[in-house]
Amino acid sequence: MRRTALGEGVEFDVIRRILDRARPPGRGVLVGPGDDCAVIGGGPIAVSTDVSVEGVHFRREWLEPGEIGYRATAASLSDLAAMAARPAGILVSVVAPRDDVPELVEALVDGAREAVEAAGGELLGGDLAGSPGPLIVDIVALGRVDWPMLRSTAGAGDEVWVTGRLGGAAAAVRSWLAGREPHAAAREAYARPRPRIEEAAWLAERGVPHALIDISDGLAGDAGHLAAASGVGIVIDAGRVPVHEGANRSADGPEDALRLAIAGGEDYELCFTSSPGAVEEIKEAFEAAFDATLTRVGTVTERSGVFLRWEDGTMEPVGTMGFRHFTGAEP
Amino acid sequence: MRRTALGEGVEFDVIRRILDRARPPGRGVLVGPGDDCAVIGGGPIAVSTDVSVEGVHFRREWLEPGEIGYRATAASLSDLAAMAARPAGILVSVVAPRDDVPELVEALVDGAREAVEAAGGELLGGDLAGSPGPLIVDIVALGRVDWPMLRSTAGAGDEVWVTGRLGGAAAAVRSWLAGREPHAAAREAYARPRPRIEEAAWLAERGVPHALIDISDGLAGDAGHLAAASGVGIVIDAGRVPVHEGANRSADGPEDALRLAIAGGEDYELCFTSSPGAVEEIKEAFEAAFDATLTRVGTVTERSGVFLRWEDGTMEPVGTMGFRHFTGAEP
Repeated sequence: MRRTALGEGVEFDVIRRILDRARPPGRGVLVGPGDDCAVIGGGPIAVSTDVSVEGVHFRREWLEPGEIGYRATAASLSDLAAMAARPAGILVSVVAPRDDVPELVEALVDGAREAVEAAGGELLGGDLAGSPGPLIVDIVALGRVDWPMLRSTAGAGDEVWVTGRLGGAAAAVRSWLAGREPHAAAREAYARPRPRIEEAAWLAERGVPHALIDISDGLAGDAGHLAAASGVGIVIDAGRVPVHEGANRSADGPEDALRLAIAGGEDYELCFTSSPGAVEEIKEAFEAAFDATLTRVGTVTERSGVFLRWEDGTMEPVGTMGFRHFTGAEP
Repeated sequence: MRRTALGEGVEFDVIRRILDRARPPGRGVLVGPGDDCAVIGGGPIAVSTDVSVEGVHFRREWLEPGEIGYRATAASLSDLAAMAARPAGILVSVVAPRDDVPELVEALVDGAREAVEAAGGELLGGDLAGSPGPLIVDIVALGRVDWPMLRSTAGAGDEVWVTGRLGGAAAAVRSWLAGREPHAAAREAYARPRPRIEEAAWLAERGVPHALIDISDGLAGDAGHLAAASGVGIVIDAGRVPVHEGANRSADGPEDALRLAIAGGEDYELCFTSSPGAVEEIKEAFEAAFDATLTRVGTVTERSGVFLRWEDGTMEPVGTMGFRHFTGAEP
């Protein structure tokens, strides 16, 4: 619908230039950027927010400014995928050192806009502030969903499935931290993650998932969230975990690659549980539609906790192998 | 409705403790905190985001942690008031130095929760990240609104009105920056601003405002935004501007107090335009209902720009007298 003209001020000049490059607000957006709020209509609204901090979630040496915005937005949109919601739009808050305004901020927001438009949504608004500290990007994702898929509805006996391959983003981070350029496939997984919006909607329309989550904290961490929310446990079969090419190429052998795939965060693939046999019926059609694998990685159990089952049958608690802020384990 | 159990990890322990103190999700909240997204139903949704940066928007020496959260939330809810929307809830993102987790972060989010619950909404979710830099709070406000009031719909000949009194928050900031304790009334205006949610809804229900904005950048700045958005100008009568007690008590004479009231930001009062005579009809009922004044401060003109008219009739462009980030004029 409408976009609103802005008053005077340097901050508003930056916002104006960013909005000049955005598409005009579309159907379902009652008030676009520029007023005090954006207003969106139509059905229940799913909303989530995801903060990225320079030095914690990314480093400038690793990514172009546009990639910082793209990646942060994909991460936030992935939370919509985890509810099987379809993006309406995003709000982008940037806290930036003054020297980075306007060039870096504009490129960053352009990257965010590209990511949300690729997923069918719009740039709805945001905020911009100067700071003496690191660059910070907070992306709020808003989506429409009639029947939200939850993480709390898994049942014992369900199969556990994942989309795509895991560990690529973590492999890239590990290479950078070791002073090496990551393998191209790993870099791509980190810099341009693809939120599984359409895939989640497709699965939800067919009633396949019992419980659904996206893999942002690592398979071990997010399986733990899903299990805790559902009051169940999960056993992951080590030999079944689909390892990303970037992890295989970067790792010191298969067990190291597997660790990246299980503990590494920020893959933004989906993890879901389903009735035994139900996924096999739609697996071929899914893989043809999305050029992405569906892999059964484990089983939901009554006993709580998340365990890794090795091929010799031994079981090992995964603990919190995922990357964690506030525990010293930084990317 | 439901709240979702969280998995392992220090970050999640903090979130768990925060949520344990929140009210259970209410009517209209289909999915509360803890899943990948919150989901809210019912009518068009207004959404806005507002970032507060330590050292830019607040200092720790000035406010208790709970007040930092309260104030940031009130500022974001004020954007809902500016559309005449009613709060559904907030998302709270906190980026904090590790030493501040968990105590300061929990107190801050408690303050945010108190502010949103006082305004009839809920804590719907958020994010938490460690940082080597300053404390940062990003509050996303979501509200319901059937008929959003815009800033872009003022017409030449409209009267310009404001709620309450202006300049109190700016007076507090100026006192602190000068090394003095602010006057109690000024400190209260800064630390515990009251978003004019009910007042805006009351005015909107009676069809009073033609255009509406909240005063976050200062009367001069926000009148400028309203005028630019509407393609009109505004003349503010210097003698009519309602000066806050905290500004009068702190200022070096009446002209200095007036400057705080016109240029000082973060009052979170409302500024609106209306047909000549329309506000006089409801002024008494409004002031009785809300214990807050309604004051006519100026007139909408065809000529663009915002001007201050002194009592001797001389006119002066206000320029951008409001506080601005990125221009060196920090609170």
